[in-house]
Amino acid sequence: MSIKVAVTGATGYAGGEVLRLLLAHPEVEIGALTGASTAGTRFGQHQPHLLPLADRIVAETTPENLAGHDVVFLALPHGASGAVAAQLPDDVLVIDCGADHRLESAADWTTYYGSEHAGTWPYGLPELIVGEESRQREVLPGVRRIAVPGCNVTAVTLGLQPAVAAGIVESADLVAVLANGFSGAGKALKPHLLAAEGLGAASPYGVGGVHRHIPEILQNLRHAGADEATISFTPTLVPMARGILATATARLASHATSEVVRDAYDAVYADEPFVHVLPEGQWPTTAAAIGANTALIGVTVDDRAGRLVTVTAIDNLVKGTAGGAIQSMNLALGLPETTGLTTIGVAP
Amino acid sequence: MSIKVAVTGATGYAGGEVLRLLLAHPEVEIGALTGASTAGTRFGQHQPHLLPLADRIVAETTPENLAGHDVVFLALPHGASGAVAAQLPDDVLVIDCGADHRLESAADWTTYYGSEHAGTWPYGLPELIVGEESRQREVLPGVRRIAVPGCNVTAVTLGLQPAVAAGIVESADLVAVLANGFSGAGKALKPHLLAAEGLGAASPYGVGGVHRHIPEILQNLRHAGADEATISFTPTLVPMARGILATATARLASHATSEVVRDAYDAVYADEPFVHVLPEGQWPTTAAAIGANTALIGVTVDDRAGRLVTVTAIDNLVKGTAGGAIQSMNLALGLPETTGLTTIGVAP
Amino acid sequence: MSIKVAVTGATGYAGGEVLRLLLAHPEVEIGALTGASTAGTRFGQHQPHLLPLADRIVAETTPENLAGHDVVFLALPHGASGAVAAQLPDDVLVIDCGADHRLESAADWTTYYGSEHAGTWPYGLPELIVGEESRQREVLPGVRRIAVPGCNVTAVTLGLQPAVAAGIVESADLVAVLANGFSGAGKALKPHLLAAEGLGAASPYGVGGVHRHIPEILQNLRHAGADEATISFTPTLVPMARGILATATARLASHATSEVVRDAYDAVYADEPFVHVLPEGQWPTTAAAIGANTALIGVTVDDRAGRLVTVTAIDNLVKGTAGGAIQSMNLALGLPETTGLTTIGVAP
Amino acid sequence: MSIKVAVTGATGYAGGEVLRLLLAHPEVEIGALTGASTAGTRFGQHQPHLLPLADRIVAETTPENLAGHDVVFLALPHGASGAVAAQLPDDVLVIDCGADHRLESAADWTTYYGSEHAGTWPYGLPELIVGEESRQREVLPGVRRIAVPGCNVTAVTLGLQPAVAAGIVESADLVAVLANGFSGAGKALKPHLLAAEGLGAASPYGVGGVHRHIPEILQNLRHAGADEATISFTPTLVPMARGILATATARLASHATSEVVRDAYDAVYADEPFVHVLPEGQWPTTAAAIGANTALIGVTVDDRAGRLVTVTAIDNLVKGTAGGAIQSMNLALGLPETTGLTTIGVAP
Repeated sequence: MSIKVAVTGATGYAGGEVLRLLLAHPEVEIGALTGASTAGTRFGQHQPHLLPLADRIVAETTPENLAGHDVVFLALPHGASGAVAAQLPDDVLVIDCGADHRLESAADWTTYYGSEHAGTWPYGLPELIVGEESRQREVLPGVRRIAVPGCNVTAVTLGLQPAVAAGIVESADLVAVLANGFSGAGKALKPHLLAAEGLGAASPYGVGGVHRHIPEILQNLRHAGADEATISFTPTLVPMARGILATATARLASHATSEVVRDAYDAVYADEPFVHVLPEGQWPTTAAAIGANTALIGVTVDDRAGRLVTVTAIDNLVKGTAGGAIQSMNLALGLPETTGLTTIGVAP
Repeated sequence: MSIKVAVTGATGYAGGEVLRLLLAHPEVEIGALTGASTAGTRFGQHQPHLLPLADRIVAETTPENLAGHDVVFLALPHGASGAVAAQLPDDVLVIDCGADHRLESAADWTTYYGSEHAGTWPYGLPELIVGEESRQREVLPGVRRIAVPGCNVTAVTLGLQPAVAAGIVESADLVAVLANGFSGAGKALKPHLLAAEGLGAASPYGVGGVHRHIPEILQNLRHAGADEATISFTPTLVPMARGILATATARLASHATSEVVRDAYDAVYADEPFVHVLPEGQWPTTAAAIGANTALIGVTVDDRAGRLVTVTAIDNLVKGTAGGAIQSMNLALGLPETTGLTTIGVAP
Repeated sequence: MSIKVAVTGATGYAGGEVLRLLLAHPEVEIGALTGASTAGTRFGQHQPHLLPLADRIVAETTPENLAGHDVVFLALPHGASGAVAAQLPDDVLVIDCGADHRLESAADWTTYYGSEHAGTWPYGLPELIVGEESRQREVLPGVRRIAVPGCNVTAVTLGLQPAVAAGIVESADLVAVLANGFSGAGKALKPHLLAAEGLGAASPYGVGGVHRHIPEILQNLRHAGADEATISFTPTLVPMARGILATATARLASHATSEVVRDAYDAVYADEPFVHVLPEGQWPTTAAAIGANTALIGVTVDDRAGRLVTVTAIDNLVKGTAGGAIQSMNLALGLPETTGLTTIGVAP
Repeated sequence: MSIKVAVTGATGYAGGEVLRLLLAHPEVEIGALTGASTAGTRFGQHQPHLLPLADRIVAETTPENLAGHDVVFLALPHGASGAVAAQLPDDVLVIDCGADHRLESAADWTTYYGSEHAGTWPYGLPELIVGEESRQREVLPGVRRIAVPGCNVTAVTLGLQPAVAAGIVESADLVAVLANGFSGAGKALKPHLLAAEGLGAASPYGVGGVHRHIPEILQNLRHAGADEATISFTPTLVPMARGILATATARLASHATSEVVRDAYDAVYADEPFVHVLPEGQWPTTAAAIGANTALIGVTVDDRAGRLVTVTAIDNLVKGTAGGAIQSMNLALGLPETTGLTTIGVAP
């Protein structure tokens, strides 16, 4: 099989990462690379690490340029995906790495994004628990529209859902604090994203319940069985280019030993190719996930505090975006789910 | 006045920072610099940034070398301070930057440190609320032994105590997650502290209720009025040399607007020289605190999650250790509390 | 004495650093803080580390707002200083942190900057050798216009001038390669200055003889005695917020031992308050210079290669810009040269 | 084909990187992983990013444990390889990532390493020019011992050899200054390699002609045609985990335009799979080489300075060590040279 793939927003971080992974995908041929302000320029200027594509020219994002592809990845700012997708035939697999089609509730969308909702697409988190013994991966074969989860959402959902599903924790009063690499903010030219600001500093953003990933996390955890989930969610920028370390805690529903908890996590993830629960006493470092489509999870019980503590490390651009997207693409197209994806990180 | 000061552990990070600040203190004369394995070597080899002391020779930590000083700072690994302090006259001001004398409960000490408690000294956090209208600074004038708080403890205590004291939040089920610079771990030669490991990575440590700063935080919050405080506490190493960003949340006791909360924080901190509550909408970055004896605090209410969210930035080596220590020294000696200390950070 | 000082470009990195240092200057009162696009905003938004100025409002850069000051610092992009300076009275001390007035040769200016030269001002590098036994500091008392050197220029000049002046090296075929922190590039919103790009990466800029600091270095070295100086000069961005590490080499004129070389350096710098030649075997780290007005220099002879090797560390914003500027201000105003400046760095 | 491979020093950085790449090599089966102090421990503790090997146990480095493999990689401190190699059969392909067998001159070895030379092995830099139209890759098929080049050596050699071979530059008076990531120093527990020291700082090491990579660079350039090569060589540690940016300059033999120079480089490298000369005006960043077996080279002429300037970016652990080693392994075993290796970097 040779699947022809186009990538819009190819000169950004998400688009670049989709291409990095597609270059290693045995069934894919890379077609159009499109951009907005970068159209007409040499691709190698923008993504010098993707050497095999260095001499390509960035095309404009037009229906003509996107025509003739089996799959189109949208790596665009939120609000822009709907218009492009509307121009693509129904039988083309369109994978939106942006936020536009993730939320099921139009009201949630309007509350957090302040605009009109573009509609809901099948959700691209194959490991999501969507009922006893069911996973989201069962929904994906054959779909032609996929909404890729938010990177923070993937980390927090994977860290908490086994405990929520098993009833080990209360779903109310969850608390998550994340250490985030700068690529998660994209290539936007904003003062606080400058290297001189970011080097050697940690700072929070979207504090106090306003971050747009909150309704998406809660939506996922409701699928996993949470009735009345609430979450205090605080991401913090730290001096890394990539990576998310999500520390998520939940009130224990009753006494649970670390062993019971670990069994619950193993039961959910033992057969997952891309989610790895670390042995007792080992905790994840983002370093181990860089470049890999892996989520590394540590979990324990803090009896004195009455809380379950989980720490999840992912590469925001891989398992958090492009890797998860390709995993879902594989499922949609009937390929083995792991095709072209690796669990091997680049460290140190 | 000329106060003669000795520093033990002068070649480590805490000792070096005490000296950096003492060099700018108008009433201090720097006496002995002592060390263990570094005794006999040129000080400039170890602390090349302290140019005025570069040609000094590190002395051994002996009673003879520490004799004749008005103040002795102990910047030693925990467990080592007691023996040195026992050799010093009662009228010498001894300031322990280590953990040995912080805890009031010998049982807590044994639980978290696993050895016998060395005894409790007056606690060197001048801003600590110790009763309605009372602060710890009132205790310090004239004392001759001071236990400097743990760096994480200072950040979390300052972030939470106004809300606890005002009854805005429940003291049970506090949650704190911290981004920590590597100097907090000292100059210990451990694999996970290598630059190749730390650069570009975030990783947690002391997860699940075992970190030794937990009983100290709870002790402080009890002084501030918490009856039944519990805390889930997770520090994470991120790629910074200095700095702590502490995100601490607490369940709201009842509905409270951000304005009410902010008023409570302003009431406690408006006259504090070294604690600064940021205006609505501005959040702290550790960059702004580097090199300064400042705690920068942002606070807001997350109504949906039912939690107060506070974010506190400090320099772990300054307000978190050496600066706080000198602030307490000033109080003990009857000097103006701010002598030799600055609120001006080194950024970017 | 109370010297009233205004700073234009106060919200940028150079302007912020001038203010950081002025806040510690005992003879200075800080007057107007002016900016362009930031006029009307709260200063604390832009420079949160300068707490004592947090509630100031940024003023527009107009003659009215700059009136009534004894000293005006210009921290503006090159090309903008001339117009502002022209509006200021002759008896006001105007200190230009930008490039406009550094070069003595209008032809050099036009070659490297491509515009018309704004004229030459007295050069603010007090340590510059300008003849046997003469230093540039002798020129500065009483002047009312000062051109602050480029940061890279200061590092390379201080590293090479003793060898050049002593005839130890040939002045032709100098080679300098620098590791540069990102603050040297200012707060400009350019893609390659983003944190995601800079973290974990090294990259050169201005390669091949086109960097604008080249003619300024050569001008300085001619003052120090170089007849036919040429220099290959390559700066490289590395993941630091601050700091320059300049490795500069020169062909040995004849056999010279490291001892002879070291003596030559000591002879030039032994009495300099802000230039420190490290002992044999110790090499500078930028860490030791951060926040300090210090240049740390290591020097040795590589006999096999036939080259003198010097490595100089400075903080680009302090000795490289704001500290050097204030040092020159002190001289111009008849204050002790070291007033308000420190040799103590902030490390680690 | 299934080639069984053992790796000694498997828990270090070089060993880990060899394994990371071997895991992606289609013809390789990973056999014994051996170590010294780590023998008996779970491999996942040491290299958590190599998930497929996480549950392996580290074996001792004994002849028994290394028996039965087709290839043995030695990733050991220098001085240790000879003894291990001596115990391995002649028909096993032994690839030494350390320094022991790189130098052809026993005198050079003794001068720079101070011990007795262990002997010279075929040199594993396939792109090395070893005569007009000849490359080192022609030597490698069928060999059973390979000495992998030093990482700095690879960067500097690739950057300079086309100019040297074409006679564009004089081979005397070469100057190279490098920005180096910390993994190049290995996992050694030394104070200057601590994260708190390395974060935010640049510092040189091995200054003044004493670095052990110098004789190896000169040896290579002699093969490429340099008669009387000398080099001033200064590496500097900068805050990166991986990467080398080598700025290497050479005196122009006569006037040469950038076009002529570029043609010479293209002539040498146009068909090289892993060496890429960037187009005019684009300069390499280490970011583009991370994780890839690529050397990215920029080159230009500085007429005023009379020097050719080259800047080469590699990943010290890939093209600089493990990738180069596997490239040579492929040649030795008769596999296509690029098997299992990628030119795609992990950025940002």
